[in-house]
Amino acid sequence: MEKVNIVEKLSLFSDYWNPRIVGELNGQQVKLVKFKGEFIWHHHEHEDEMFYVIDGEFTMELRDKNIHLSANEFFIVPRGVEHRPVAINEVSIMLFEPKETLNTGNKKSELTQENLKHI
Amino acid sequence: MEKVNIVEKLSLFSDYWNPRIVGELNGQQVKLVKFKGEFIWHHHEHEDEMFYVIDGEFTMELRDKNIHLSANEFFIVPRGVEHRPVAINEVSIMLFEPKETLNTGNKKSELTQENLKHI
Repeated sequence: MEKVNIVEKLSLFSDYWNPRIVGELNGQQVKLVKFKGEFIWHHHEHEDEMFYVIDGEFTMELRDKNIHLSANEFFIVPRGVEHRPVAINEVSIMLFEPKETLNTGNKKSELTQENLKHI
Repeated sequence: MEKVNIVEKLSLFSDYWNPRIVGELNGQQVKLVKFKGEFIWHHHEHEDEMFYVIDGEFTMELRDKNIHLSANEFFIVPRGVEHRPVAINEVSIMLFEPKETLNTGNKKSELTQENLKHI
């Protein structure tokens, strides 16, 4: 039962597309992740995913539109919806999603992170 | 499927202790709330609650310690744990909790908000 400082936690890592777990509640996890570049198209069969921008900006590409997100904005990708995050510059994100959520969803690739670290 | 701007949503209301719903995912809700003053002691039987500070600061009083929280910090109050938020000045908070969560938990009072607005 300690508070979590997001800025402090973000200073602990610098790699991209590799979420860290910073909190857990009600079967959900709070994660921090840094994006830069283009991710892969994927979807999550059973999980809705929330992306909240802490610092920077990125575009969530969907098949029928793009959502551009900046600091203090969030977007919820509903389960089943294909998406691909793209960031021209580094962006820091807070994620909320069920703890079973795999970062690449239905696609296994070299970007898949199976054992996320708690920091 | 639209993005949500937290700062914009916070500008839409000014009353205290009255959470607004701004998102929903996996049976959980994302809420925004402004605190000022002292709330009541209560707990939630079945829900863990996350308090993320957007702007300002407040103290989460627990029976055995106080947690002081500022912008970019969050605290998760586990189910069953008595707590009381206290804010000397106005503070803006983002909440994550199951959609069944009542703001005053096990205590019904004039502060209880039964029908939260979606904004």
